[in-house]
Amino acid sequence: MAVNNTVRLAARPVGPPQPTDWRHTTEDAPDLEDGQFLVRIRYVSLDPAMRGWMNDIRSYVAPVRIGEVMRAFGLGVVVESRHPKYHEGDHVTGLFGVQDYAVSDGDGVTVVDPGLAPLPRYLGALGVPGLTAYFGVLEVARAREGETVVVSGAAGAVGSVAGQIAKRLGCRVIGIAGGPRKCAWLTGELGFDAAIDYRSPDVRRQLIEHAREVDVYFDNVGGEILDQVLARIRPRARIVLCGAISQYDVVGKPRAPENYLSLLINRASMTGMLVDDFADRYDQARGQLTDWLRSGAVIAVEHVIDGDVHDFPAALASLFAGENTGKLVLRLDRSAG
Amino acid sequence: MAVNNTVRLAARPVGPPQPTDWRHTTEDAPDLEDGQFLVRIRYVSLDPAMRGWMNDIRSYVAPVRIGEVMRAFGLGVVVESRHPKYHEGDHVTGLFGVQDYAVSDGDGVTVVDPGLAPLPRYLGALGVPGLTAYFGVLEVARAREGETVVVSGAAGAVGSVAGQIAKRLGCRVIGIAGGPRKCAWLTGELGFDAAIDYRSPDVRRQLIEHAREVDVYFDNVGGEILDQVLARIRPRARIVLCGAISQYDVVGKPRAPENYLSLLINRASMTGMLVDDFADRYDQARGQLTDWLRSGAVIAVEHVIDGDVHDFPAALASLFAGENTGKLVLRLDRSAG
Repeated sequence: MAVNNTVRLAARPVGPPQPTDWRHTTEDAPDLEDGQFLVRIRYVSLDPAMRGWMNDIRSYVAPVRIGEVMRAFGLGVVVESRHPKYHEGDHVTGLFGVQDYAVSDGDGVTVVDPGLAPLPRYLGALGVPGLTAYFGVLEVARAREGETVVVSGAAGAVGSVAGQIAKRLGCRVIGIAGGPRKCAWLTGELGFDAAIDYRSPDVRRQLIEHAREVDVYFDNVGGEILDQVLARIRPRARIVLCGAISQYDVVGKPRAPENYLSLLINRASMTGMLVDDFADRYDQARGQLTDWLRSGAVIAVEHVIDGDVHDFPAALASLFAGENTGKLVLRLDRSAG
Repeated sequence: MAVNNTVRLAARPVGPPQPTDWRHTTEDAPDLEDGQFLVRIRYVSLDPAMRGWMNDIRSYVAPVRIGEVMRAFGLGVVVESRHPKYHEGDHVTGLFGVQDYAVSDGDGVTVVDPGLAPLPRYLGALGVPGLTAYFGVLEVARAREGETVVVSGAAGAVGSVAGQIAKRLGCRVIGIAGGPRKCAWLTGELGFDAAIDYRSPDVRRQLIEHAREVDVYFDNVGGEILDQVLARIRPRARIVLCGAISQYDVVGKPRAPENYLSLLINRASMTGMLVDDFADRYDQARGQLTDWLRSGAVIAVEHVIDGDVHDFPAALASLFAGENTGKLVLRLDRSAG
């Protein structure tokens, strides 16, 4: 019988999650019923949305319950199956949680080919973040050739792909990221036209220099930067609210966009997106993303932390500290199991 | 030679316009050149947008210059013409300014039929406000049968028509207006399903009772109410920013919508609209509005102030004080001219 280490939500965080908000358990991996299979998880995905899942508020999904295994996307291998469509040895992605083993009935599970791409890429550019970037730029923002596209969280899993897709469309692409190293990576490696370091003291001047006349703002961070960009949009600009990582740990009200009337003056729009709404077109999008990655038109990078499930809280904290470049994953690199 | 009384912008207001922000002049009506005609103005339109035109900020139109005749829509009669398409006696609407006489080359001018509707209606339900309501509800919000539509400024020129159009579509329509008399008018005369008095101390409770699960918010006022409604939208809600009258006189930053992340959670949108963008379809819309008005499916009301151009500042103040029900106009009721 396999041993399953889990990380469960012990309390709802106020502000940044604390160690006392988590409970670590060790238990037997559950038995299977007909129609189920057991996944040994090899990669746990770290996503900004996780912070929202921990709050007891009405949202697009129910919050994680107190005592429940923390919700997380993951990639693993089927080690036992009583499901006709999933077989021992299959590599699968899904919402497997922060634990060593997950039981699944196949709902929301995708079988992936370990020969086509590095495994963690299926949690990044070929997973939910890549699909979010794809549909966000092409369908929600409807970015067009010649337009100026600004992407925040540009060195992250979603932003890095979003900016590169906009480049493929022939847009002028400005990335906003934290620190000179990330900014150099965006312009040097990913082909962004300019990068703005939001940690720099002259971020406002950089915005004025590079991000005036904005047609599309693909926003992953919210807060002050969103407000600054609102003041610089062009007529009929489209702002895609994909995330607001700067606001997730805020206690009380988030930083509100004081310049929102710029939407009125410019007949512009601000639209929240959720990638699930495009689920019926994931296959087509994954095919396109795979082609781009194979040809080098889009570059994907994963930031891998080696450890075990107990390292999840620290890995999540590093995501919110902006320590990652590209897709952040926790690789469960254990001898046992 | 006709005498032309004008109201000119003397200074840019800080907060609500003051008497010193205006300058009244009396001068000769100008001579015509070929291709021009002279309009004797009979109705001056009072519109919330006027307050924005007085500010020196980047917007969808240039600000009124200091010393310039205050910009205003109006309705008048052609009293002299050197233009082949406009004839003496024609009733016309256009941006004629706050004055007794305007010279026009026909740009933005519409000839109207005084036999079809009361004259001031061409500045209301059959003018820019009605067209704004029409395209806002049908094209920007894309309201659909069975949806809940909330309209602010619901007793005003735009809001009263917007709510009635939404009723025609089969929506449940909630109006927000100031005072019990206006609210009773919305439900009693215009067929709104409910009305919320924003001046009432329990506006929050009324919003919770009537305006939860909002599919469409047609916003003419901005500020606190927008923020409250943002907290109550349904998935894929559409917020149309048509105006923000509560914020136009605010000195400094406007009241920002702290609940904007509701857009993200609900994959909802907030979109600024300007009716000019639909100019190529005005004829079709006016035809539909005329039919609705004739059949009684839509009721239009005008609030007429009698006076002369010098009464314009007071009339504008009464608009911002919310004293009007329906379309507010100043009738230039003078013996001379």
